[in-house]
Formats: sequence, C-alpha cells, structure tokens
Amino acid sequence: MTVYLDHAATTPMLPEAIAALTDALGRVGNPSSIHSAGQEAKRVLEGARETIAATLDCDPIEVVLTGGGTEAVNLAVKGLWWARQADAGEPAGPGPARPRVLMPAGEHHATIDTVEWLEVHEGAEVEEIPLDALGRVDVDAFARALARSPESIALATMLWANNEVGTLQPVAEVAALAADAGVPLHVDAIAAYGHVPVRFRAARAASGSGAAGLVALSVSAHKIGGPVGAGALVLARSARVEPLLHGGGQQRRIRSGTQDVAAAAAFAAAASVAADSLEIEASRLSALRDRLVAGVRQAVPDAVPSGDPIDRLPGNAHFSFPGCEGDSLLFLLDMAGIAVSTGSACQAGVAEPSHVLRAMGRSEADSRGALRITLGRTTTDADVDAFLAALPAAHEAAARAGLAARATSFDR
Amino acid sequence: MTVYLDHAATTPMLPEAIAALTDALGRVGNPSSIHSAGQEAKRVLEGARETIAATLDCDPIEVVLTGGGTEAVNLAVKGLWWARQADAGEPAGPGPARPRVLMPAGEHHATIDTVEWLEVHEGAEVEEIPLDALGRVDVDAFARALARSPESIALATMLWANNEVGTLQPVAEVAALAADAGVPLHVDAIAAYGHVPVRFRAARAASGSGAAGLVALSVSAHKIGGPVGAGALVLARSARVEPLLHGGGQQRRIRSGTQDVAAAAAFAAAASVAADSLEIEASRLSALRDRLVAGVRQAVPDAVPSGDPIDRLPGNAHFSFPGCEGDSLLFLLDMAGIAVSTGSACQAGVAEPSHVLRAMGRSEADSRGALRITLGRTTTDADVDAFLAALPAAHEAAARAGLAARATSFDR
Repeated sequence: MTVYLDHAATTPMLPEAIAALTDALGRVGNPSSIHSAGQEAKRVLEGARETIAATLDCDPIEVVLTGGGTEAVNLAVKGLWWARQADAGEPAGPGPARPRVLMPAGEHHATIDTVEWLEVHEGAEVEEIPLDALGRVDVDAFARALARSPESIALATMLWANNEVGTLQPVAEVAALAADAGVPLHVDAIAAYGHVPVRFRAARAASGSGAAGLVALSVSAHKIGGPVGAGALVLARSARVEPLLHGGGQQRRIRSGTQDVAAAAAFAAAASVAADSLEIEASRLSALRDRLVAGVRQAVPDAVPSGDPIDRLPGNAHFSFPGCEGDSLLFLLDMAGIAVSTGSACQAGVAEPSHVLRAMGRSEADSRGALRITLGRTTTDADVDAFLAALPAAHEAAARAGLAARATSFDR
Repeated sequence: MTVYLDHAATTPMLPEAIAALTDALGRVGNPSSIHSAGQEAKRVLEGARETIAATLDCDPIEVVLTGGGTEAVNLAVKGLWWARQADAGEPAGPGPARPRVLMPAGEHHATIDTVEWLEVHEGAEVEEIPLDALGRVDVDAFARALARSPESIALATMLWANNEVGTLQPVAEVAALAADAGVPLHVDAIAAYGHVPVRFRAARAASGSGAAGLVALSVSAHKIGGPVGAGALVLARSARVEPLLHGGGQQRRIRSGTQDVAAAAAFAAAASVAADSLEIEASRLSALRDRLVAGVRQAVPDAVPSGDPIDRLPGNAHFSFPGCEGDSLLFLLDMAGIAVSTGSACQAGVAEPSHVLRAMGRSEADSRGALRITLGRTTTDADVDAFLAALPAAHEAAARAGLAARATSFDR
C-alpha cells in the first residue's frame, strides 16, 4: 500500500464526487438539447455551476467550465491577450497594440508556456516580475511595471499560491494595483483553491466593476477531490476574452463543446465538501505538515525548507537536500512505498533544476535536490510517520550517490 | 420513461465504459508523476490509447487525447493553419502566406466557427465546396479548388458523415486529391466513428507517409457510449500542428494538461465495444431505421426524407415536414415522451433553418420543418413503434400551428 504524499499532483476523488459522477452517468441528455432529457441535464449542470460559483464567491454566469486547469489558464491568457489587442484598435506601428505581458518568475508551466507562445507567435513582450527568497512576488516591482505606460500592457498574470513551494501570493494587493493601472489580471488559483479561501468577489473588490484588476481566475477539479478533465475559468461579467474553442456556442460562446454534466456535478460535489471543511482541514493538515517539517529537520539537519513558513498552503512541505539529487530521493522513497514529487508533476521526468527555486535565488545544486511532499484529505498521522521513518535511509543513499557522482565528475 | 431517439446528440454510456471509469476512479496517480502510482496510471492510460488506436487503424502515438470533439477539431484546424503558415516562411506580402481554407458547406459548427475565426482573426480566405441534393460534397468542385494554386492553401477540412442528415462523405477520394495537391486534410469523424468503419491508415493510403492528404481526424467519446469531455485527434506522425493548449508538455507537447486516465479508460472500453459489434449493430440499426422511415412516409406522405438513402449513418433518419416548424414537432413529441432533435444539439435553441439543408438546396420553409431521429445501442423495436404511434397526432397539431402562423403572417 503506497503512502501517497503527492496530493498536489492529483488527489483521490472524494466519495461524494464519485457518487455525484456515477449518479449523473446513469442519465442521458445533452444540456444543449431542448427536449426534456436535455433540459433535465441542463438543470443538473446549472445546479453544479451554482454550487461551484458559491465556493468561489462569484456569480454562476461568471463560471466558464473547461476541460481542466490548463485549458482555463490558456483561455484566460490567450483570450485576454487577443481581446485586449482588439479593444486597442489598429496599432500605431507594426506589432501588437499592447505588447506587454507581466508575469512573475516561478509560475506554473501552463502560464509560462502560454506566454512564451504569445511571445514567439504574437509578438508579446514578456516582463518577468521577480520573487523574493521565500517565493513571494515582489509587489513593488509589480507596481513599477504596471505604472510604466500601462496602456502598453495587454495583461498581467500571477499564481494565488505557488504549486511547488506553497507560498501564498499577495493577490489582493496586485489586483488593486492592476485596477489602478487599468490592466486586467488573471490569477491561477489551481494550487490554492479548496485549500485556502479563494474569494473572487472579495479579491476583486478594489477593481470595482470594470474590466481591469482581477478579472479572471483559473481552478481545477482534480486538485480538490473532483475528477480530472474538469476545471473552470471565473470570468468577470465585464471582462472580454477571445474564445479558444469555437463551435456550438455553449457557455455564452466563450467555451464551445458539449457540456460535461457528470464532471460538473462531481466537481461541484468536491468543491462543496472542500468549502465546507476548509478551515478544519487546513488546520488539521497544517499540524500534520508542521510535524513532518520538524521531523525532517531533526532527521536531516542540513535540509533547507523552501517557501514562506507562515503564508503557505496547509498541505505543502518543501525541502532542498544539499548534495542529493531530488530524483534519487524520489526513487528511493518510492521503493520504500512512499510517493512524493520533486516539483510539479507537469515537469516530472524533466531533469532540470526547479525554475521556481532558481527564481528564489537558490543555487542550481540546491534546486536539483528538491522534494515536494504534499498532504491531502486522506493523509493520516501514520503516513507522516511512514515518511519520517523512510527518509533517513533514503537520504543517506541519495547523499552517497550524490557524492559518488561528484567524485566521478571531478575525476574527469 | 422517455423514448430517447436523439443518440446523435449524446448516447447513454455503455456499462463497459461505466465499469472502466469507476474502476479508474478508485485509483490515484498523475500519469506524469514518476513514482509508482504515477507509472501505474500511465500504464492504464497508454493501454487505453492503444485500444483507441486499434479501433481507428492508427498508431497509438498518433492518438492525441483531448477534452472532447470540439477541442480536437479546433486543434486540427487552427493547429494546421498556424503550422502551415510557419512552414511557408515569410509571406511575400501582407497577410498569411497560405490564406486559403477549403471547407464544404454544411459542416458542423465546430469547424464552421473555427474557420470563421481564422477568417476574421488571421486573414484566412474560406472557400466553400458545395454539397449535392443528398448532402454529399461535390468532389469535382473540391478537385478544382485543390488544383488552383495549391501552394496558397493552408488546409482542407471535411466531415466523414454529416451529423444532421447522415450522409457519408467521399473521404478517401478527397484525401487522394489533397495528397496529390500537397494539401493537408482534416476529417471530422465525430458523427461517423463507431457507427461506420473509420480507418485512418486505409483512408490515408493514397497520401503515402507525407504531410499532405489525410493527416488529422477528430473523434469524440460520448457519441459512442463513452464519457462526455473526452475525444481524440488522430494526427499522422508526419503532420505538424501548433498546439492549442500549452503547459506541462504532455502528449508530445501537442496537448498539455493533466491526462484524464479514467476518461481514457472509459473511452477505450466504449471504442472497443463499438468496434467489436460495429457490423452487427449497423445492420440492426439500419433495419430499425428503415422501418421507421417507411412508417413515417406512410403516416405523413408529404414528409421529405433527407440525405443519401444508401450511403448514410445506420442510425440516422431525417425528414422535412412541409408546413411544420421542426421546433413545434419536437415539443409535441417531447410532450408525448419522445426525444428527437431538429438538427445538431449544438445548434438547438437557435431558431434558424438548418444550414445543412440550405446547402443541399432545400427551401427555407423545408429547412425549418426538419426533424432528426437518431437511433442507438439502446433503441428497440418498441421505441420505433412508440415514435410511429405518436407522430400522426404531433404532425397534425404542428401542421395546424404552421397553418395558423402563416394565416397570421398573411393578415399583417
């Protein structure tokens, strides 16, 4: 039986979500069909949308259901980019009317790669906002970038919480700055949603009802006990995005494609459970995590914890183990029946030092020896014990391997 | 209990697909994770991909899993468009290097709206290939369009079978012409897959191994008894598309986003059942449909069947009822417990005459009085009987309403 401590990669579906899904699978009807079977499907779908909206503090009409978090981020970033160019009218010279995209270092690759595509393909000019040593975005730098000819900025984007090191970001502060500058802000809340309060209306307060400030927010279902392949983009009524998927015109033409009623129902069930138990679960996981962190530091005194020690995701523990390769540690722990990660699952298998740790000013060696241990709803005291019991031997073996590798490279 | 005769909108999930889905829901693991739980998820995912590939006569590596049919079509059409512009190098003048997109009339809106976006947004020049009176694309017109300066064509696209009137299209013929012209062809096989043989390698035979001819083919899971929110783009190894969703780099960087193992497993289970029983089910449904068609013509002699009477989808019956509004008929039948459609579910609720019927040269009045009756795996003799029993009264009432509406409009 695996001790699963990689809940940030994906977490088991909640029984409530499985029940909602299987219940919906037994029915038939395309919510776009106007006969009774279709309308009944639509009723279930819109009920799910209302539930999801309630957990995000937004209106149901602002919830655009997508095929996952990556699609939500792509829709927000590309959609805002194109809409902002169109709104600006004919550009004065060659290239886009609003070429600048503001993005912190250490974002998830869904954002990085989307923005890079805009750079290569659409002439975007990307400005990277630095992170501090705890992984928190530099608000002053963000403010300066926003103040410099704001009319040339297409959009700004940022994480609600860093998916690798767990640091919570100053979303409301940046949203207020973006609102003042008249720039739309997208927030990737995929790692945060369901684990810390993610309240769209509240975070958007400083933005008023305009099309600037926080206007778009991405979430995913499978990170909170819902199904894979389901996500949402919360999109303020006043915001305009160019659609990414064209077709039948579902969801106010913003996202075409047959709507997935079963996934929406399961997503809503998971969102509801997560919202109802957020505080109690956050305090339970924080306590478990703190015990895990203390145990690691006792077992491996030179382990370096990463991210903000206070303002962080409850279930996230992150360490660098100097002299070790994260991959070695991961394999050794896996052999001991313990599943952890070196960083984002989406980058797993890519033998590169974490771009997040590099952005936090850590050395390349430090960035290679990273381990992310993420706790979730099924995590127990026994799981933490098992991890702490397995770590010393795994660490010793990984350190030996690291030493041998360095000796070999020195020989050459 | 509804008599469900709208299987083309969506069809109930097969028990085998539900079993595969629920089995996969009980596991946890992101297939991008390198620990054992992740690798086990990956094993299930790749097994599903192999099964799906086998039903489509292509290599597993050619199967790009998507969040549905609409995404597959968008990825194919936009992805080929962008890749073809990039391959052409710097355009000689303003505008795209290869501006032309060849598309038959009467396509699904996933294609129409995507191509329209390319027109408005990217400077595409769309050339519509006409349909004949049976809804079959005019191969000679396609050949002429392909022969005229083929280097200026970005891509061609077509349906395998029309989703409204059920007519099968001359895919292999057009694929051979496209291959000769050096133009990549995308085929939307969403309505056809699982109902008639859709064999990628065979249909691509004339194309050789190059990047022209049939290179991309879209399918959807929920039309064949798999889950909603799952589809695939079959993409020839030699073909290049620009990705639509950027991020973690999954699926050879062509489609980023956490891969949905449960949906893939359920999709594969449905695909497998559909492939194994394709012939027997096609002949069963054809017989049921022929009985339904004969019954309709007996009950309403002036009903006009649409589409090719021979080369058509087994489960599709389509009629125009002169003097009736399709919506009236639909509502009246719905009240009698029978679910049918006026056309594509994706266009349901849009009170416009069918663009497919208009493209077939039918009058606007005829195009308004359309009814699509689609049979599926759960359809029985009793369902056909129930439809035929309910039709006369519904037709009489709809005809009376139509007469009254015309009298009123004459008065004004």
